[in-house]
Amino acid sequence: MISRVLSADLPEHIGERVTIAGWLHRRRELKSVTFLIIRDRAGLAQVVLPSGTTGSAAEETVLQVEGLVVANQQAPHGVELTEPTITRLSGLAQPPPFDLYRPALTATLPTILDHAPATLRHPQLRAGFEIAAASAAGFRAALDRAGFTEIFTPKIVGSATEGGANVFSVDYFGQPAYLAQSPQFYKQAMVGVFERVYEVGPVFRAEPHDTARHLAQYTSLDAEFGFINDHFDVMTVCRDAVAGMADFVRERARPAMQLLSATLPEVPVQIPHLHFSDAMALISAATGEDLADEPDLAPAHERWLCQWAEREHGSELLFVTGYPLLSKPFYTYPDPQRPRYSYGFDLLFRGTEIVTGGQRLHRHEDYLKVLAARGMDPAPFGGFLQVFEHGMPPHGGFAIGLERWTARLTGAANLRQVTLFPRDLHRLSP
Amino acid sequence: MISRVLSADLPEHIGERVTIAGWLHRRRELKSVTFLIIRDRAGLAQVVLPSGTTGSAAEETVLQVEGLVVANQQAPHGVELTEPTITRLSGLAQPPPFDLYRPALTATLPTILDHAPATLRHPQLRAGFEIAAASAAGFRAALDRAGFTEIFTPKIVGSATEGGANVFSVDYFGQPAYLAQSPQFYKQAMVGVFERVYEVGPVFRAEPHDTARHLAQYTSLDAEFGFINDHFDVMTVCRDAVAGMADFVRERARPAMQLLSATLPEVPVQIPHLHFSDAMALISAATGEDLADEPDLAPAHERWLCQWAEREHGSELLFVTGYPLLSKPFYTYPDPQRPRYSYGFDLLFRGTEIVTGGQRLHRHEDYLKVLAARGMDPAPFGGFLQVFEHGMPPHGGFAIGLERWTARLTGAANLRQVTLFPRDLHRLSP
Repeated sequence: MISRVLSADLPEHIGERVTIAGWLHRRRELKSVTFLIIRDRAGLAQVVLPSGTTGSAAEETVLQVEGLVVANQQAPHGVELTEPTITRLSGLAQPPPFDLYRPALTATLPTILDHAPATLRHPQLRAGFEIAAASAAGFRAALDRAGFTEIFTPKIVGSATEGGANVFSVDYFGQPAYLAQSPQFYKQAMVGVFERVYEVGPVFRAEPHDTARHLAQYTSLDAEFGFINDHFDVMTVCRDAVAGMADFVRERARPAMQLLSATLPEVPVQIPHLHFSDAMALISAATGEDLADEPDLAPAHERWLCQWAEREHGSELLFVTGYPLLSKPFYTYPDPQRPRYSYGFDLLFRGTEIVTGGQRLHRHEDYLKVLAARGMDPAPFGGFLQVFEHGMPPHGGFAIGLERWTARLTGAANLRQVTLFPRDLHRLSP
Repeated sequence: MISRVLSADLPEHIGERVTIAGWLHRRRELKSVTFLIIRDRAGLAQVVLPSGTTGSAAEETVLQVEGLVVANQQAPHGVELTEPTITRLSGLAQPPPFDLYRPALTATLPTILDHAPATLRHPQLRAGFEIAAASAAGFRAALDRAGFTEIFTPKIVGSATEGGANVFSVDYFGQPAYLAQSPQFYKQAMVGVFERVYEVGPVFRAEPHDTARHLAQYTSLDAEFGFINDHFDVMTVCRDAVAGMADFVRERARPAMQLLSATLPEVPVQIPHLHFSDAMALISAATGEDLADEPDLAPAHERWLCQWAEREHGSELLFVTGYPLLSKPFYTYPDPQRPRYSYGFDLLFRGTEIVTGGQRLHRHEDYLKVLAARGMDPAPFGGFLQVFEHGMPPHGGFAIGLERWTARLTGAANLRQVTLFPRDLHRLSP
């Protein structure tokens, strides 16, 4: 490895000659002196050029700088490098399309995304991905502690998983096939093997909607487990997973959160919950809307409920339980007392649904009945139904949208700001 | 959660009445008594039925058993449950297609894979996936320690990444698109952002080969990082990643390894390495084969070299370095001293390549030159080449095939035995 000191470690080397290496983040030409600001993975470092020289490398050139570490309270980390010897490590660089050293990128989102290899280097954009990485690690750590096993499931499937809409078609050696919309059936099958499983991986939705909250590919944090009493057991594990994510962001991504002036939610030991019918009644009473036959929450309702939870319970997180059965996928467990409703739930966070989950059907005969009742052909689900011919315990699970969580956490208005090289109706590159 | 004691914890409850829950693994009807063997995620538990009764549930039915814990040295964990009260938690189960309680499944592999939801419950099959999960966790832990950041990259791409062959086509809202064969270009781009990145995710190859070592989807453990001197720095990190995988398997999957009578390799601090040209000379001298113009190692050569490394260095792992440049992808860095050869390497383990890696080109002009020299159109690589127009440090990386590693570790003759619901030329379900 190129022998060097990271920028953040420079204060330990005051008075020594050391080597640093990184990208030329900014050249600051003042009247009497020119500074080069070097960016490495640990932060920034200031280099003082000999008087009378200004250097010539374009910003984003990769430089190695050997120099004397001198204290300077105005410089990053309180130190700067003087008497430098500079070597170029990269090829000649083009100036970046935007000034990456300014506090915020001011270009439009499409322009920022078109130039992603350069713009992702902006500390503010980069910060979102540090937070996403910490969140995924926290999810896994929480479930590892609870005895879950990680799985890796097929992303090319022979039949459309959730019932048909919005799937991408793949030419599979001349056969029709699809990209998996979720690992749903596979994670359920694996409950029969490991009892408790999770997967962190891509899912694919051919979303015809061009909105700030839909993407063609996103990262799903999926969990599924058996031997539950009902969906409240699923919500307990979901709460622990979200708390684990928040903990890891706190520990591993503190500078990124600070840079974005972002704050973590307090994750209550018991996240407040509200039945769908009670939620509708509350909104109806407050707004006068007639919501008697609404099958689902509209985005405005989700925002209203989050304000309510904040006001009534001091919580930025709220479970809505018992969504109407017909608004949920066929594998959803019905409420035995109120069969119009289900044992499905969503978790709302700062105005948006970030998790969906619930108890699933676990008896083979129940699957046959519900498919018949919904007028669905059981044939495409043959491989899936096999799972329930052999014994399956009562089970459930949930899926957290990593980008949705990260967007809520960082205040990103558009999911694309926290998605690495996003894919949507109009975007397939870079 | 259903309140229960896991099978492995029963010895702590001798003399108490407790509840266990799991799958009916086996019914053993002896002359005077019938035992039910219950399988849960922690192991097996024996239940003694009241004399004169034999029970009726089919194997794989999920049962909850409340009973008195009594010591019995012949039973699993040295205890059994007597005076049981049994409740069925699942629907009525079909008997499994094979006796899951026998030490090995004797069916052919296609039959085993057709019935995966049931056969994966066999402890021997299940064990391979425990080992894979521990390995992936060990990879991540090793790279986390080394300051790497996890990334999640697009799996649908606008142009075929590695040059065109063996890609799956996707209908992307009416536009042609492809499934990513690797995260290669994205991980290189992210070296410009985080310096050190890794990804654990699916990659897709439309392999027209129907062999034991090719699959249409596998799990790639990818790493890429900057500020290297040459490919030997990449090999150092690769060694640490493999050592981390072995450590986690040792700690987290010991029972699975024991069940399969599998042994871990010693991962030397310095894995022995051999230049491609020296490897060819050795094989040639030993076997009399004329290998002067061979661009790559044949499977028989990989086996020969592994035996050689074991004999000469006592190592089950061997790096082969400096593969001929033209046998490697266009982004491979050439050996400045011997431009016919590259700074690419493979890691061989127990007879097979399980890792491929190397130093990459990092100057924009070098990419343009090499594409021209190979007669390749730079246009489809536009988004990728953008990365190098801005400064990129000398960098490299590697990709470990999780299923190949797991197969070598467990002695599985076919990758499909250690791949969850494998996909190949002929298989798209379950």
